[in-house]
Amino acid sequence: MNDEKLAELIATLTPPDRKLCAKARELLDKMAIPRGSLGRLEECAQRVVAITGSLTPEIKKKTVVVFAGDHGVVEEGVSAFPQDVTAQMVANFIKGGAGINVLSRHVGAEVLVVDVGVVADIKPQPGLLIKKVARGTQNMAKGPAMSRGEALHALSVGIEVAHRLKSEKTDLLGTGDMGIGNTTPSSAIASVLTGKKVEEVTGRGTGISDQMLDRKIQVIKKSLQLNQPNPLDPVEVLAKVGGFEIAAIAGVIIGAVFHKIPVVIDGFISTAAAVVAVSLAPVIREHLFAAHKSQERGHAVLLEWLTQRPLLDLSMRLGEGTGAALAMSLIESGVKVLREVLTFDDAKVRKPIH
Amino acid sequence: MNDEKLAELIATLTPPDRKLCAKARELLDKMAIPRGSLGRLEECAQRVVAITGSLTPEIKKKTVVVFAGDHGVVEEGVSAFPQDVTAQMVANFIKGGAGINVLSRHVGAEVLVVDVGVVADIKPQPGLLIKKVARGTQNMAKGPAMSRGEALHALSVGIEVAHRLKSEKTDLLGTGDMGIGNTTPSSAIASVLTGKKVEEVTGRGTGISDQMLDRKIQVIKKSLQLNQPNPLDPVEVLAKVGGFEIAAIAGVIIGAVFHKIPVVIDGFISTAAAVVAVSLAPVIREHLFAAHKSQERGHAVLLEWLTQRPLLDLSMRLGEGTGAALAMSLIESGVKVLREVLTFDDAKVRKPIH
Repeated sequence: MNDEKLAELIATLTPPDRKLCAKARELLDKMAIPRGSLGRLEECAQRVVAITGSLTPEIKKKTVVVFAGDHGVVEEGVSAFPQDVTAQMVANFIKGGAGINVLSRHVGAEVLVVDVGVVADIKPQPGLLIKKVARGTQNMAKGPAMSRGEALHALSVGIEVAHRLKSEKTDLLGTGDMGIGNTTPSSAIASVLTGKKVEEVTGRGTGISDQMLDRKIQVIKKSLQLNQPNPLDPVEVLAKVGGFEIAAIAGVIIGAVFHKIPVVIDGFISTAAAVVAVSLAPVIREHLFAAHKSQERGHAVLLEWLTQRPLLDLSMRLGEGTGAALAMSLIESGVKVLREVLTFDDAKVRKPIH
Repeated sequence: MNDEKLAELIATLTPPDRKLCAKARELLDKMAIPRGSLGRLEECAQRVVAITGSLTPEIKKKTVVVFAGDHGVVEEGVSAFPQDVTAQMVANFIKGGAGINVLSRHVGAEVLVVDVGVVADIKPQPGLLIKKVARGTQNMAKGPAMSRGEALHALSVGIEVAHRLKSEKTDLLGTGDMGIGNTTPSSAIASVLTGKKVEEVTGRGTGISDQMLDRKIQVIKKSLQLNQPNPLDPVEVLAKVGGFEIAAIAGVIIGAVFHKIPVVIDGFISTAAAVVAVSLAPVIREHLFAAHKSQERGHAVLLEWLTQRPLLDLSMRLGEGTGAALAMSLIESGVKVLREVLTFDDAKVRKPIH
C-alpha cells in the first residue's frame, strides 16, 4: 500500500447514520422500562445501529484481534520485561492460557493473533497469522523506528485483517496488543498528536520503578528531538516513533470502519493507535467504542482527545485486548436490549400516568 | 420467624476468610501478567475466595432473585406509574420480555421471581414463587407500612429463598426488585439508617417531575414524623417505612451470607435492603458486591455508608436486578482469571527483570 491508496480508502469512509440512530431511540422509548433507564446500554445499542446501518443489528460473532510486535527501543531499558516475552506471550495466546483468552472465552469472543513484527520466528498455526513487516522496529532513540514504507505496510496488514474478519462475518471487533516496550512508542505518539508534554502521557507500563520511568521519559524526549515527527502527518509519526502493532491496530480500525463493523478499542496502546487513525480520518471517531479507562498514565489524555467516555473503569492495565473483551459483552447486551425487551403494548404493561 | 430466631441466625454469620484471601493473592501474583494488572477482576476473585472459603471457586450457577411487592404509599401520588404495573411486570418477567430477562440470558444467569406482596393475584408458574405476606403494604403516610410480624415474615421469605438457592446449587446471587412506588420507602429507610436528610436520599424513581419529587419528599418526611422509626431497630424501620420486597431482599442477603454465597446487590432498592441487613449484622458488609452506581439520587449515599465501590457506572436506573446481572458476569470473569490464566512457569514466560 502507498499513501495514495490509503488516501483513497479513507475518502470512502462515511459517518454513522444519524437518522437511524434517532429511529433506534424511538424503538427504545416504546419499551416497557422507564425512559432511558438502561443508560449507556441504550446508548451502545443506538450507536451500533448508526454504525452498522441496521435497525435490528445482531452480534453473532465477536473477535478480538491481538497484534504483536517488538520494539528496538527496549535496548534503552524502558521495560520491566525482557524482549523475548513478546514471542512467549504469543505462544501463550495460542495455548489459550493468557488473560485475553480467558476473558474472550468468558464473553464468547474469538481471538485472532497477528505477528506483525515479532523478532523471533513463530510457527504458523490456527489462530495465528504471520504478517511480519520486519523483526522488530529500530531503536527510535537512535533514528526512525521504521521507514515510511514499513509504516504503510503495517497499516495495510491491519486493513487486510479487517477485510478477512468481514469475510468471516465478525460483527463486533475488539483491538488488542502485545509488544514488550510498546507503551514507549505509544507515549511518543500521544505526545506528538495531542500536543501534551511527554511527562503527561508517559506511565509505568508493565510496572517500572521511578528511576526507570524517568529514563523512559528521557528516551521518549530524545527520540522526539532526534526524529522530529510532523504531527500533521500521522503516517510519519508512526514511522518515526511508532510500532508495527500500533500501526496495524490503526489499520484494522480503518478497515473495520470501511466495513461498518463497530470497533472496541482497548487500553493505552490501542487508544494511541485510534488517535493515529482519527488523525488520518476524523470521521472514524464516531465509529469507536472506548472499552475502559486504563490505569496507564496518558490514557485519560487520549480518551479526552477522542472525546470518548469509556464503558468500564476496573483499574486494569494489562492490554492484550482484555478491556475490549469485557466491553464487547456490554455492547452486545445493549444490542440485545434493543432486540429483545418487549414494548409496553406487547408486554401489556400500562404506561406512565404523567 | 420471630426476633429471637433472627438473632440466632445472625449470630452464626462469620466474616470472609482473610488468610484464604491472601493465598489467592499469592496465586494471582504467579500468573503471567504484570502484577495486579487485571485490577478489580483480581479483587473480585480474591473476595469470592474469601467469602466462599474455597481457593478454587467456580461459578456454575448464577441466579438473580427478583422480589416483587406493592406499596400503599402510591395513593399519595409518588410514582409515575400506576400500581397494577407491578403485577404486569411480574407477568413480563415470567414471559421473559423484561430488561432483567434479556440481561440474565446474556450473562447466563437464571431469574427467579418471588411475589412477596403484590396486590393482584398471580398464578403460580415455573420461575415464580408465591410467598405473599399481604396484598401490598399499608400507606406509611397514614401509619406503619406493616406490622413487626409482617416485617419478620418478609425477612423469612428472603431467608428461605436463600436456603432454596443453596440447595439448587446457586454459586452467585444477584438481588432484584419490582414494586411501583418502592423508591419512596427505600428513601425513607436510607434517611433513617444513614442519618441523611430526606432531600439527600430521594430521587426521581421511574422519572417523576419536579413537582412530584417535592411531593414525594413531603410524603416521606410526613411518614417519618408520624411513625418515628427507631434507627437502632432495623426490623422496626422495615415495618414502619419499608416494603415487603425490601425486607425480603434483606432476608435473602442474610441467608446467602449464612450459606457463604457471594451476593451482588443491584441499585437503590437493593442497596437500601443491604443497609438494613448490614445494620442487623455488620459482618454482612464484607460479603457484598455492589453491582453499579445507579442514577437514582441517594444511591451514592448508601454505597458510601456501606463503604462499597460499585463495579459498574453505566447511568442505569431500571432496577429489576439489571445492574446485578451485568456485574455478576464481571465477578465470574475474575474467578475464571484465577482458575485459568497460566503462571509464568506453566506458560514458559520470563519474569520481570526488576
